[in-house]
Amino acid sequence: MHSVFSTEIIVRPDDIDMNNHVHFSKYLDYFLAARYDQMGRCYNLSMEKFIEMGFNWVASKMSINYKRALLLGDVAVVKTQLDSFNGAQVKVNFWIYNKITQKLIADGYGNFTLLNISNLRPTRIPQEIIDNYSL
Amino acid sequence: MHSVFSTEIIVRPDDIDMNNHVHFSKYLDYFLAARYDQMGRCYNLSMEKFIEMGFNWVASKMSINYKRALLLGDVAVVKTQLDSFNGAQVKVNFWIYNKITQKLIADGYGNFTLLNISNLRPTRIPQEIIDNYSL
Amino acid sequence: MHSVFSTEIIVRPDDIDMNNHVHFSKYLDYFLAARYDQMGRCYNLSMEKFIEMGFNWVASKMSINYKRALLLGDVAVVKTQLDSFNGAQVKVNFWIYNKITQKLIADGYGNFTLLNISNLRPTRIPQEIIDNYSL
Amino acid sequence: MHSVFSTEIIVRPDDIDMNNHVHFSKYLDYFLAARYDQMGRCYNLSMEKFIEMGFNWVASKMSINYKRALLLGDVAVVKTQLDSFNGAQVKVNFWIYNKITQKLIADGYGNFTLLNISNLRPTRIPQEIIDNYSL
Repeated sequence: MHSVFSTEIIVRPDDIDMNNHVHFSKYLDYFLAARYDQMGRCYNLSMEKFIEMGFNWVASKMSINYKRALLLGDVAVVKTQLDSFNGAQVKVNFWIYNKITQKLIADGYGNFTLLNISNLRPTRIPQEIIDNYSL
Repeated sequence: MHSVFSTEIIVRPDDIDMNNHVHFSKYLDYFLAARYDQMGRCYNLSMEKFIEMGFNWVASKMSINYKRALLLGDVAVVKTQLDSFNGAQVKVNFWIYNKITQKLIADGYGNFTLLNISNLRPTRIPQEIIDNYSL
Repeated sequence: MHSVFSTEIIVRPDDIDMNNHVHFSKYLDYFLAARYDQMGRCYNLSMEKFIEMGFNWVASKMSINYKRALLLGDVAVVKTQLDSFNGAQVKVNFWIYNKITQKLIADGYGNFTLLNISNLRPTRIPQEIIDNYSL
Repeated sequence: MHSVFSTEIIVRPDDIDMNNHVHFSKYLDYFLAARYDQMGRCYNLSMEKFIEMGFNWVASKMSINYKRALLLGDVAVVKTQLDSFNGAQVKVNFWIYNKITQKLIADGYGNFTLLNISNLRPTRIPQEIIDNYSL
């Protein structure tokens, strides 16, 4: 079992849509913001280091279930957990909570594919990266 | 089998992210923009009419697979097709193509839940709406 | 002279554009997010209270000068200061800094107009609101 | 006097904010989208060509006045006109109209600075580019 890491994101006015709640696609941006934060802060392998190494991550699949709404004034707590590695792909699960009520707002998972920047093709995730992530 | 409807969306500079392609969460916005367009234009049952009737649609699940990237200068063709109704929910499939190359960029589906605006609770989709959508 | 208040905003990946820096229009969103935060936290007159009182604020003018770029990984410090009141309008100055380098990223001002929610028309800012803001 | 060029932009649901109109910062994105379209279509000097030539444009100032709101279902007509060149900078005026009502929604101007991609420094706009734009 991999560790669960947590990032807080303060809802901004530009995240709110005509329904007066956080726009549905913004939750995926919260998930990505949490991963970006956690790559550097929790795994000590920041996005910038990946790019220095000649790699990039792109999304290859996203699945999200919406349970409740976040409103302006709310703070999201975005928890993520590595699920599994498969060739060039990693699957990451996520859960978004309301910080105050602690209720589940949304959950889901994303698959990310490692690209070699030189040719923009998927590349098998090196074992040292897998080891580094295996917290 | 339900009809497949199609909407063109011109990629805007604010859709592009640091990877020089359309930001991954924006494809869900393209899907929603296509549905909004098609509700009025193809089903003759616009979002505004739903609101007049005291209803609203909210996303309850989204699933998307990313195949290729759209770039600035590209035009997306977003095709959607009703899959099925289930109580308060409708499942809608989508496919996003590059207008010029005709290659598949992303596909997936979304579940939308009909809410009663007066109490913001899910409400069974009325038969007349199902009939109206059954093109 | 009015007080200067300060809000920190963590740059998110969805704020970054094809130039690998924060997208130019997002700085106005940072300004608005800072005002929203400061209305409740610093003036004790939150946006929600305005809406309860039957008011809303909308932007009527924005002017912004871009000096330097913010990058992913940076934290913005958004300082705002009331400049003046004029009928239904308030002018607010802002300065956006990079938290680490303390360099000025952008500055400018915005005019906001108070609307009466019942008719969506501009309405003279009540003296009690001016007093409340005169910190 | 320089030519006025025009671009239509269909309002998307993700452009709408909690006030049920196009979010104030999105009008700057509409302006940029119109310039991007017009650079290639009207001046025959696309953004892509600038990048091939080793140049990039960044915003150095934006000023916008908001007159009326655009709603979901509306189409924006964005007109732009070159105002003047000054060293590394060009000033461009814009007007955003509602296509149906033909009413003015917002107007303003932006200054853009030409950068040399190799060192990211401002670079005097070459005479051939000025000539090309002098329609």
